[in-house]
Amino acid sequence: MSDGREQPADDADRTGVWLVGARGNVATMSIVGARAIARGLTGTTGMVTEREPVSSLDLPPVDGLVFGGHDIAPESLVAQAERQRDRNGVPDAETLAAVRGDLAEIDDRIEVGTAVNCGAAVSEDSERLDERLAVRDVVDQIRDDYETFRERHDLERLVVVNVASTEPELAEPDRYDTRDALERAIDEDDRDLPASVLYTYAAIDGGHPFVNFTPSTGNTLGGIRELAAAKDVPHMGRDAKTGETLVKSALAPMFAGRNLQVMSWEGHNILGNKDGLVLEDEANAAGKLSSKGDVLDSILPDIGHNRVRIDYTPSLADWKTAWDYIHFEGFLDTEMKMQFTWEGSDSALAAPLVLDLVRLVAHADERGNGGLQPQLASFFKAPIGVDEHDFSRQLDRLYDYAEQHR
Amino acid sequence: MSDGREQPADDADRTGVWLVGARGNVATMSIVGARAIARGLTGTTGMVTEREPVSSLDLPPVDGLVFGGHDIAPESLVAQAERQRDRNGVPDAETLAAVRGDLAEIDDRIEVGTAVNCGAAVSEDSERLDERLAVRDVVDQIRDDYETFRERHDLERLVVVNVASTEPELAEPDRYDTRDALERAIDEDDRDLPASVLYTYAAIDGGHPFVNFTPSTGNTLGGIRELAAAKDVPHMGRDAKTGETLVKSALAPMFAGRNLQVMSWEGHNILGNKDGLVLEDEANAAGKLSSKGDVLDSILPDIGHNRVRIDYTPSLADWKTAWDYIHFEGFLDTEMKMQFTWEGSDSALAAPLVLDLVRLVAHADERGNGGLQPQLASFFKAPIGVDEHDFSRQLDRLYDYAEQHR
Amino acid sequence: MSDGREQPADDADRTGVWLVGARGNVATMSIVGARAIARGLTGTTGMVTEREPVSSLDLPPVDGLVFGGHDIAPESLVAQAERQRDRNGVPDAETLAAVRGDLAEIDDRIEVGTAVNCGAAVSEDSERLDERLAVRDVVDQIRDDYETFRERHDLERLVVVNVASTEPELAEPDRYDTRDALERAIDEDDRDLPASVLYTYAAIDGGHPFVNFTPSTGNTLGGIRELAAAKDVPHMGRDAKTGETLVKSALAPMFAGRNLQVMSWEGHNILGNKDGLVLEDEANAAGKLSSKGDVLDSILPDIGHNRVRIDYTPSLADWKTAWDYIHFEGFLDTEMKMQFTWEGSDSALAAPLVLDLVRLVAHADERGNGGLQPQLASFFKAPIGVDEHDFSRQLDRLYDYAEQHR
Amino acid sequence: MSDGREQPADDADRTGVWLVGARGNVATMSIVGARAIARGLTGTTGMVTEREPVSSLDLPPVDGLVFGGHDIAPESLVAQAERQRDRNGVPDAETLAAVRGDLAEIDDRIEVGTAVNCGAAVSEDSERLDERLAVRDVVDQIRDDYETFRERHDLERLVVVNVASTEPELAEPDRYDTRDALERAIDEDDRDLPASVLYTYAAIDGGHPFVNFTPSTGNTLGGIRELAAAKDVPHMGRDAKTGETLVKSALAPMFAGRNLQVMSWEGHNILGNKDGLVLEDEANAAGKLSSKGDVLDSILPDIGHNRVRIDYTPSLADWKTAWDYIHFEGFLDTEMKMQFTWEGSDSALAAPLVLDLVRLVAHADERGNGGLQPQLASFFKAPIGVDEHDFSRQLDRLYDYAEQHR
Ligand SMILES: NC(=O)c1ccc[n+]([C@@H]2O[C@H](COP(=O)([O-])OP(=O)(O)OC[C@H]3O[C@@H](n4cnc5c(N)ncnc54)[C@H](O)[C@@H]3O)[C@@H](O)[C@H]2O)c1
Ligand SMILES: NC(=O)c1ccc[n+]([C@@H]2O[C@H](COP(=O)([O-])OP(=O)(O)OC[C@H]3O[C@@H](n4cnc5c(N)ncnc54)[C@H](O)[C@@H]3O)[C@@H](O)[C@H]2O)c1
Ligand SMILES: NC(=O)c1ccc[n+]([C@@H]2O[C@H](COP(=O)([O-])OP(=O)(O)OC[C@H]3O[C@@H](n4cnc5c(N)ncnc54)[C@H](O)[C@@H]3O)[C@@H](O)[C@H]2O)c1
Ligand SMILES: NC(=O)c1ccc[n+]([C@@H]2O[C@H](COP(=O)([O-])OP(=O)(O)OC[C@H]3O[C@@H](n4cnc5c(N)ncnc54)[C@H](O)[C@@H]3O)[C@@H](O)[C@H]2O)c1
Ligand code: NA
Ligand code: NA
Repeated sequence: MSDGREQPADDADRTGVWLVGARGNVATMSIVGARAIARGLTGTTGMVTEREPVSSLDLPPVDGLVFGGHDIAPESLVAQAERQRDRNGVPDAETLAAVRGDLAEIDDRIEVGTAVNCGAAVSEDSERLDERLAVRDVVDQIRDDYETFRERHDLERLVVVNVASTEPELAEPDRYDTRDALERAIDEDDRDLPASVLYTYAAIDGGHPFVNFTPSTGNTLGGIRELAAAKDVPHMGRDAKTGETLVKSALAPMFAGRNLQVMSWEGHNILGNKDGLVLEDEANAAGKLSSKGDVLDSILPDIGHNRVRIDYTPSLADWKTAWDYIHFEGFLDTEMKMQFTWEGSDSALAAPLVLDLVRLVAHADERGNGGLQPQLASFFKAPIGVDEHDFSRQLDRLYDYAEQHR
Repeated sequence: MSDGREQPADDADRTGVWLVGARGNVATMSIVGARAIARGLTGTTGMVTEREPVSSLDLPPVDGLVFGGHDIAPESLVAQAERQRDRNGVPDAETLAAVRGDLAEIDDRIEVGTAVNCGAAVSEDSERLDERLAVRDVVDQIRDDYETFRERHDLERLVVVNVASTEPELAEPDRYDTRDALERAIDEDDRDLPASVLYTYAAIDGGHPFVNFTPSTGNTLGGIRELAAAKDVPHMGRDAKTGETLVKSALAPMFAGRNLQVMSWEGHNILGNKDGLVLEDEANAAGKLSSKGDVLDSILPDIGHNRVRIDYTPSLADWKTAWDYIHFEGFLDTEMKMQFTWEGSDSALAAPLVLDLVRLVAHADERGNGGLQPQLASFFKAPIGVDEHDFSRQLDRLYDYAEQHR
Repeated sequence: MSDGREQPADDADRTGVWLVGARGNVATMSIVGARAIARGLTGTTGMVTEREPVSSLDLPPVDGLVFGGHDIAPESLVAQAERQRDRNGVPDAETLAAVRGDLAEIDDRIEVGTAVNCGAAVSEDSERLDERLAVRDVVDQIRDDYETFRERHDLERLVVVNVASTEPELAEPDRYDTRDALERAIDEDDRDLPASVLYTYAAIDGGHPFVNFTPSTGNTLGGIRELAAAKDVPHMGRDAKTGETLVKSALAPMFAGRNLQVMSWEGHNILGNKDGLVLEDEANAAGKLSSKGDVLDSILPDIGHNRVRIDYTPSLADWKTAWDYIHFEGFLDTEMKMQFTWEGSDSALAAPLVLDLVRLVAHADERGNGGLQPQLASFFKAPIGVDEHDFSRQLDRLYDYAEQHR
Repeated sequence: MSDGREQPADDADRTGVWLVGARGNVATMSIVGARAIARGLTGTTGMVTEREPVSSLDLPPVDGLVFGGHDIAPESLVAQAERQRDRNGVPDAETLAAVRGDLAEIDDRIEVGTAVNCGAAVSEDSERLDERLAVRDVVDQIRDDYETFRERHDLERLVVVNVASTEPELAEPDRYDTRDALERAIDEDDRDLPASVLYTYAAIDGGHPFVNFTPSTGNTLGGIRELAAAKDVPHMGRDAKTGETLVKSALAPMFAGRNLQVMSWEGHNILGNKDGLVLEDEANAAGKLSSKGDVLDSILPDIGHNRVRIDYTPSLADWKTAWDYIHFEGFLDTEMKMQFTWEGSDSALAAPLVLDLVRLVAHADERGNGGLQPQLASFFKAPIGVDEHDFSRQLDRLYDYAEQHR
């Protein structure tokens, strides 16, 4: 690694990582982090896979991850990283300088994506596939991008991760409940299918493990799940659990366990990044709010009132602050309160989980475990196919998996 | 129950509860709560034993609990309850009016206790056993009080619970590490033994299940533990986990599980009740602070800085507010923060746990399970003989016990 | 006052207080408080007129206030006070019991009001003047109610205070910019005029000092102000400053004074009373949000971002909690933060100000000072005719007034 | 200023600034800030003298300030600034790089100071004047340092500012209540006199305007004040008001003005810089805690309970977080609460005030206004000779001064 070029330690250890939304905050921070770790500039704090017992698994090394992706933003990865440095202070100037070459190289591997049905996420100046293309052609194009990348870099395995902007919720998703229905819709050029579904379909159909880091529809459709089961491709989602919801999933079980009656749980999130701007749009926020809200309803079925707000506060840049107010009743009808604030750099919380998830679905794929990956539930606000929302119990499932495969 | 007299539903279901510190905040609230539940005036919110899966156990009914105890305070139980009503609003006027007769009756069963080596907890006007009495005589007197109560009320089982003021820490507790050493000390009139040890010894030696709700020495001594094992008497402690420490034990595992590096965790407690006043005295606070501090050190072995403060703020009465500030580092060395405040009525949080613990050690006793009760770890800040401080995992032990015995 | 009947100390000191919205939270708490003070059951904490230098003014005594009013709610004042006691703990049981007779007597003096153009504030079961009545007839009816009350109780002076639910904002208020235009509209049966304007017009035209405690249109109209000036009737408003906005008006000047650049000031209010429910309706909230927002814009003209949210959280009852997050920049572009939470009983904060305002406009009236009362600016979120929002400076105006008239 | 050398705009505008504690956090940030402003790299946010109405005064320009000082720390100004950049992120890398040459030049002008009676502030490796020197000789040496600097840089005026570590409180300061007593003590080699007094005496006696930015004794002595009055030298102090106390002085008047009864005001400060470490030492903290506490006692004479804690939390570096909990009572004995947290970079808050104060005492000196400067009260926690602690009123005095002299 002497010459500043991104290069994995060993050919056998090279795993491709295809990021849909590759120039976004989360993607950029993931790439910067992976390269900074590879270059020995930073530690692995924040990565679940670098801590016992998960670290005992035989996982693809971080310095062997080879990045590519889709995006619709005209700005380069380097420019995006510089903006994060200037606005958030993360990454710091030194780290960015050291990985700038890597970023430039990776930026060349970012292809133009599709933005059908992406709502407010799509700005005027975005570069995207022609909206008039037939759905099937779009899918073929995406698939082609995956394959070209895999071949060019001679990768044995390619993991696709959706870290693109949150899409508006899809109306009546049940119509795509079977593989058959979904594939028919693609063939019949159904104009309702959103971009996230096309990226996901192309990944699963091509045999690439897939992670849905966002609240977008993607792999939640019955048709996708059936396809993944049939083709034995591991996938998991949705909506990574990084901040307020993470805290909720750790705290709510305490109220439940002590039989305390939560009367109201108010959550108010303010954040200043592009994700915040997109979520300020009501249509795009719907999925997010519902995945955030479900956690409490599941852990505290008797909760009286449960609201989540997300507001855009430009000066905060990538910093997200949540204020939660919990009004509860205890013994002898005594009313009590807990409040918390959480102040985190949103993408610095998310990025290590992207790397964790890539490594863990690659591990499942290597061992031939296809379909949904419930042992990854702790990473998501709305883990597909898993009812358990208690963070501690979700983690125990991951630890059991680690014990079984060590 | 038509005539306002305290009376259990059924003779077979009568379990004695002997409270050491029977006129304190926690004791009063426990008695008021139990009687209010018995009279159908309030629900059982806050009681772990009233929620699945623990509620499936065959536990002594709340309305069958018969209360008595020791104290050194001259003020009656009724007067104490009235002060709590006036200062804290808990219990409310209506509830207190309805149980006032029960309290008066129970107050007659409170005997004068010993206060040797109790430090700042002992005020001028307290009524207590003569300090010049020989230790053995004090033990005999206490034992006698237990038996008289049991016989008079024709109780099959008597559970002793220490809810007295926190004592100063005992120097060199190792000298009482065996039953032999402890009994020799009692016989040889060792003037260092504190009251909590005498109450505990008398309970265990008399075959009465015992709960140490306080940070005081009591059943932590090796000698007591050996005795309890030999006599097969169930006991557990110490220092009930009701507020800030409870939250810590639910939250700290989240930081650990996500491999986030906690650099500093500052905890500042302010409270206005007598417990707060006693803990303002440094000697008496030592045990409390250490049991509070251990939780974090255990769950987060790499923690950088961990401090707990307890301050006395008279206007708060029984309300305790904790402010915790958590400074942690994540991916790419990003510094982030979480803060919380917790505002609870201290004794309203503690009281339901007193009832839970009475019921659960009675259950163990009924089934012949003597010695320490690790399944009760979730109730304590410093669970004797248990290393696990993660609240969720501690609860799982209780749930496993419930499954096994349902 | 031996027999539980409401009766002023001395005939000369009797001042009538006509509350529009007389069975609401604020009105009820004002009446309960005034009567509790009159009966020596509570102190005058929270009343600005009971503290130097304002207390040196020759003001009507609290025990000489005689209450009456309009409302459209079917529930009695006693029932309303009982609900406040049960839900909020304020007033306490003892106080309410002692003034219950007074409340019942006052309730008989509450007349049915008009609810034209009151939007969401008007529920199905409300009792109100027939909406088909001509505007002029409604005004006459209201005026008649004022006079009848004044005569029946032989009052020298009657102060009218609007404490009714917030109305939706009036569109194009400029059309009523002159007395002439307003009176023509009344005569021509203009169906756009909202209830608050009718109550206010009737008061001012009848020569009764008037206070607009709410954000509703009332005395903000140019036409009303011209009339009050012409008739020399004192009046002031609008929207009493009791909680979050009060804090803002004390804190924002600190940032300004130190030349710190506020980039974002987020305010999030949650409350559970009927006012909260009404404000949850967007139309009714508009006026409130704008008067709350103006304070910051005025004190911090360079503020970057300024948002206020009001959410309805039923379990809080009359308790309002505000969380404010202030993101500011200092020397060397250093970003810093201040946050606060404010937890107050909304009507307990408002009620003493109602009494203060009644006494102070009565004082102005007695001295022949008609028109707007800028010395009362500190009481309002949007003081009519006053640009100063700095709480400390607003108070200085009141103190100057007190010095001049002592 | 093309060549990176520190150079004032114009000879006539050159004002000397002698910082006692010139390598400390506050001093470093003041120097960095002044030079960054001079070089056009940053704005003047945070400077009171750069905002109307104070900015209308004819003040010495920031780019004309020429820095020198005393310290006992072996580490250079550049090293200190680098540590601040690395630990706090302030100053940022770019700014520091641009002023590094200036810092190096200024560092050469820092002389070794005295550290008599400085307690815990003096570490092993500090370089300081021999403690065996006679007091009079120390004073002469200091005076000489001032003069040499003034002459070498051809400065018309030199302002001395104490920004050294907080000293332990002086016992029985009354013995130095007159100029006579003080000068006798110096001549008679009184070993109790602390360093701050010697620096101050030398300044005032030499005719140099003086600012006591710290809680140390310095110019609070009667003897010093008499001397300054006699010699007509302007001086002011003590203990700059930058964080929690500033907020208190803005908020407490609100509670007073609304006649709300503050029952408890708890303040808990955590900070990680050297000032925090020194204040962790009880002797050194005494003065600080008392000047912080006085503000509330003065504004809220009826306050029930008022405590301030300062704790050292290393990971926070120069960031200070205060949590304040205010428990107050309002109308009808209703208990309510306000809480705030304040998170600021301690020295970034202090530094602009150092520049403000230098400019403002220079202004007074220029106009021949000697002695205490009450118009500067708003800058201090314990303004000498001023009883007013209400921030808004203190500011009004400054604004009046500005109006008078514009
Ligand atoms: N902590 C977190 O940051 C976090 C946690 C959970 C989920 N998420 C989700 O991760 C996603 C990314 O968040 P972010 O902060 O990086 O957002 P971002 O706005 O910074 O980045 C999104 C990127 O996706 C690109 N994009 C948008 N539509 C696209 C499309 N159709 N095809 C290809 N690229 C497209 C955008 O151009 C942008 O570069 C969001 O959906 C967010 O909700 C983030
Ligand atoms: N949430 C909680 O309230 C909580 C949580 C954990 C532990 N605890 C512990 O429970 C204990 C009781 O707390 P509290 O708030 O009821 O305190 P309290 O001061 O109100 O009551 C203590 C009672 O013990 C009595 N007492 C003191 N020394 C005694 C002795 N030697 N023998 C008999 N009686 C004695 C006192 O007279 C008093 O009535 C304390 O040790 C406290 O630390 C309380
Ligand atoms: N701290 C505070 O409580 C506070 C502060 C500032 C302003 N205010 C304002 O004071 C007003 C009253 O607040 P509240 O909490 O008492 O509300 P509330 O809903 O409890 O009471 C309002 C009362 O007005 C009555 N009403 C509604 N429309 C009416 C009409 N057209 N004529 C006569 N009566 C009518 C309702 O029936 C109800 O009894 C609101 O406008 C509120 O915004 C309150
Ligand atoms: N917001 C603030 O930072 C703030 C506010 C008010 C007051 N203050 C006061 O300002 C002072 C400086 O704060 P800081 O954060 O810069 O502290 P610091 O510890 O960073 O700096 C103090 C400097 O003084 C030097 N020093 C100590 N004793 C000395 C002596 N006898 N002679 C000469 N130099 C000596 C030290 O070597 C050090 O370089 C403290 O007294 C502090 O209480 C600071
Ligand atoms: Na209650
Ligand atoms: Na910055």
